[in-house]
Amino acid sequence: MKASVGLVVKRESSLAQEVAQRVARTLESLNVGFAVEKSTDYPELSSYERFSLKGELPEKLIVIGGDGTLLRTLLSIQRESPVLLGIRAGKRGFLLEVDRYEVEERVKDFIEGRYKVVEYPRLAVYVNNEAFPCVMNDAVLLAKMGKMVRLIASVDGYVAMRIDGDGIIVSTTIGSTAHALSAGGPIVDPRLRVNVVVPLNPVQLHLRPIVIPGESYVEISLTANSNEAYLSLDGQVTSELRPGSTIAVGPCNFGVKMARFKRGENFYERLYTRVLTYW
Amino acid sequence: MKASVGLVVKRESSLAQEVAQRVARTLESLNVGFAVEKSTDYPELSSYERFSLKGELPEKLIVIGGDGTLLRTLLSIQRESPVLLGIRAGKRGFLLEVDRYEVEERVKDFIEGRYKVVEYPRLAVYVNNEAFPCVMNDAVLLAKMGKMVRLIASVDGYVAMRIDGDGIIVSTTIGSTAHALSAGGPIVDPRLRVNVVVPLNPVQLHLRPIVIPGESYVEISLTANSNEAYLSLDGQVTSELRPGSTIAVGPCNFGVKMARFKRGENFYERLYTRVLTYW
Amino acid sequence: MKASVGLVVKRESSLAQEVAQRVARTLESLNVGFAVEKSTDYPELSSYERFSLKGELPEKLIVIGGDGTLLRTLLSIQRESPVLLGIRAGKRGFLLEVDRYEVEERVKDFIEGRYKVVEYPRLAVYVNNEAFPCVMNDAVLLAKMGKMVRLIASVDGYVAMRIDGDGIIVSTTIGSTAHALSAGGPIVDPRLRVNVVVPLNPVQLHLRPIVIPGESYVEISLTANSNEAYLSLDGQVTSELRPGSTIAVGPCNFGVKMARFKRGENFYERLYTRVLTYW
Amino acid sequence: MKASVGLVVKRESSLAQEVAQRVARTLESLNVGFAVEKSTDYPELSSYERFSLKGELPEKLIVIGGDGTLLRTLLSIQRESPVLLGIRAGKRGFLLEVDRYEVEERVKDFIEGRYKVVEYPRLAVYVNNEAFPCVMNDAVLLAKMGKMVRLIASVDGYVAMRIDGDGIIVSTTIGSTAHALSAGGPIVDPRLRVNVVVPLNPVQLHLRPIVIPGESYVEISLTANSNEAYLSLDGQVTSELRPGSTIAVGPCNFGVKMARFKRGENFYERLYTRVLTYW
Repeated sequence: MKASVGLVVKRESSLAQEVAQRVARTLESLNVGFAVEKSTDYPELSSYERFSLKGELPEKLIVIGGDGTLLRTLLSIQRESPVLLGIRAGKRGFLLEVDRYEVEERVKDFIEGRYKVVEYPRLAVYVNNEAFPCVMNDAVLLAKMGKMVRLIASVDGYVAMRIDGDGIIVSTTIGSTAHALSAGGPIVDPRLRVNVVVPLNPVQLHLRPIVIPGESYVEISLTANSNEAYLSLDGQVTSELRPGSTIAVGPCNFGVKMARFKRGENFYERLYTRVLTYW
Repeated sequence: MKASVGLVVKRESSLAQEVAQRVARTLESLNVGFAVEKSTDYPELSSYERFSLKGELPEKLIVIGGDGTLLRTLLSIQRESPVLLGIRAGKRGFLLEVDRYEVEERVKDFIEGRYKVVEYPRLAVYVNNEAFPCVMNDAVLLAKMGKMVRLIASVDGYVAMRIDGDGIIVSTTIGSTAHALSAGGPIVDPRLRVNVVVPLNPVQLHLRPIVIPGESYVEISLTANSNEAYLSLDGQVTSELRPGSTIAVGPCNFGVKMARFKRGENFYERLYTRVLTYW
Repeated sequence: MKASVGLVVKRESSLAQEVAQRVARTLESLNVGFAVEKSTDYPELSSYERFSLKGELPEKLIVIGGDGTLLRTLLSIQRESPVLLGIRAGKRGFLLEVDRYEVEERVKDFIEGRYKVVEYPRLAVYVNNEAFPCVMNDAVLLAKMGKMVRLIASVDGYVAMRIDGDGIIVSTTIGSTAHALSAGGPIVDPRLRVNVVVPLNPVQLHLRPIVIPGESYVEISLTANSNEAYLSLDGQVTSELRPGSTIAVGPCNFGVKMARFKRGENFYERLYTRVLTYW
Repeated sequence: MKASVGLVVKRESSLAQEVAQRVARTLESLNVGFAVEKSTDYPELSSYERFSLKGELPEKLIVIGGDGTLLRTLLSIQRESPVLLGIRAGKRGFLLEVDRYEVEERVKDFIEGRYKVVEYPRLAVYVNNEAFPCVMNDAVLLAKMGKMVRLIASVDGYVAMRIDGDGIIVSTTIGSTAHALSAGGPIVDPRLRVNVVVPLNPVQLHLRPIVIPGESYVEISLTANSNEAYLSLDGQVTSELRPGSTIAVGPCNFGVKMARFKRGENFYERLYTRVLTYW
């Protein structure tokens, strides 16, 4: 029986491991074939079938962990994605909807089709014209070792910012509540499809975050006399950038399909609760 | 001959008066019938036909002055508006496209149909369920005499902010570069149709501006134990608000039609230039 | 027996009234003569001796209420102040140290001399060269009815800011955690004696709060083409300001003497707790 | 003749080299013995005597370049410093007072004693109890490769901030207009001796910059579950920091002595000019 469900589990987390075992038992009780992502190394999950994120994927994926687990998983799926169910195991899990207490119920709903699919757009990223993975949250250009970078950011061909500072963020709607929010960007209502461009600590004190159409192209050029930078995609460092490099960010052909159950949840309350529990 | 063009001229500005005379001469040379808004009191313009913003309007309006002149004019036109041509006479005129040096040329273009109509949405405002004028830029609730107000702001029925502070702004896309920008809101690309909700100096330091769909309804309630406030619509004070009052802001049936000539102008450059020339 | 202690009680607060009665009973049990501020209108306190804040003052004052009660009391004492004991009755009482649960104990300590006197500087305020009351927290110049003011702020003779916006705040160290903090100012360690100048929503986006010596003179001039403003001193509106008006803020000859009991309290924790309980 | 003046010259800058030659000629004409810092590699300066910043220093130093040149020079002088004259050669030179057009005049003033010495305090930095160089501007803890750090910052033993974010800055008064300003810190009047603690893009949105006494000790601890960080002192990376590391910042025994000529210069104007010329 081919596995119709794949499990991706956060590493080195006894919490995630325990949740994964509960998910596995639930799937077994439902007679559903499933496989575990091949790099998973919990002994308790070692007897199950394996699958690779780079290979053929099951129709449905269950991701157990935090936002980082989900974002890293998606960086590996650069094509039409299966429907994902996110189960929170840990403190940070804004993107993951299912709480630990409801694991069995939601996994059953997921298998039996009682969910809504919400599709989130991703952003395509190019470095010096070479394609990099599409991101769900953000592409962040950061000064290397704290030495100020100099860059010019254009939106659809028009210069929008000249920054001497720590860098710049281009974020999706869903990423607007992550790094971009901490850096001074606005909260974006999840119903909108826009991008947010946020300067990072610019010497140019008059600069402000800019909200642009989701279909826009942002081009960021490090000037020839800039210091070096690096590029972080959804929190994963992917590339060092030399002076003169150009990053382009625009629409990606493949979005992300997430299973959602709740209706009428207050997005703002959920956001502030998350932000304030950090105190 | 019925006047097909109306002139609205900023008061007490020798600059605006001079521009108005140039416009009048240009219209005369083109044999176009025109009228002057009736409250205009420059002697040099006293011999022309008059019209009222509250009565039947000419097909086309030429507004001469600053952003304030345009906004006040529009507050008086709460219906399908004529096409407006804005001519800048003074420092502040971000909404007005035509500069003094090109008055004759652009008036000719305007009369002879060589322009593009851009339509900007307005926001409908209700105070305790009573309809107030639609705004082009923003509705601002402000503490009266500096005594902190307490309010709850909801977006489409969900509580989005609880503010103890100086007030709140609900701005359109085009208003995002006015009061909302000074108060910490983001710059919004003019191609988007969104609204921005900006808290004014809240005690709740974790609050951030929120970008919402242009079709959203924002409801703002002063709590029973709040101090008094007032409501400013496009910079004009219109109403005092007692504790317990509720303001609702949503889509307006009638937008604003502006004549535009320039293509490929850099919105960001224009914006920063304006902001920085204030130094 | 001349009253050696005066009681000032917040109005229209059953909580403050109840605390005042507990304070009165404690003072009676200690055989201490006391008087109640003359505008107090709780029937339960009507039988006690009265005193006026404008007349001869008792050696010690007990203020019961919130920060507003304390600030208003001090606006009436424009001379060497008695030692003040602040008792919190209500939500907002950052300046008042004594909590309700410890009223009897602290009043006894206060009467029997077991406290430390902490002196806070005040700021003298002049409007068009006329002396106004010294403030403990802040002097705030605010646009009247939301119409943008234009002003120039100088520090010790040097132009420091040109503001087109909602106004400006000059705050003491202790006021830095009040209105100034909401408006974007920094938190100032209570051991410092500095002032903070905070622009209110300026069009000039590059402006930032400025921290200056406690002995500095700040001069604020409304330009001739500004709209009108008003001046709020410690939250009380005191004066309307016409274009061309000048406000000067500098050291005040008389500080405020507060009784303090706690040692080693974490100022930052107390601050964040207050700020976050507003959620 | 022992050199009484030392020259430190920015590298790879034809502008700095040219200014250095003018300084050398002026010193020769005044019959003053001087030496050039030993790493200087301009052929035109190769015939002069050499000295090492780590060895015995001349009584007076002339630093030619930008702020970076001055800060790097001072990082090498961890003891009672000679009097420094800063000559600007390039765009960024806020700390350097002398402009190119006045080189000969000011060098003569400097040699002949017509200047005022202004002493700026530095901050001592300890990493896991090991002493690092004192800084003139700032100590910056930064997330390595953009992965969020978690830290606790205390001021004189009291917890002041818990940060999950990009890091933290501790700045002197003079450093308040450098990185700290871009990161949201206030401008500090140069007459004050305070430090500013600025959180870098914290998830905890309620955090604000804190101004503390110049004699305070700030302790920053990376939590055990933090990602790695590095420490940048006056813009020079000096140390990688593992989870659990502790940085302490406090007063340094040796300040910096700078020669100053101008009186009555407007600090604020100079600052805004610098900031706005970046546009």
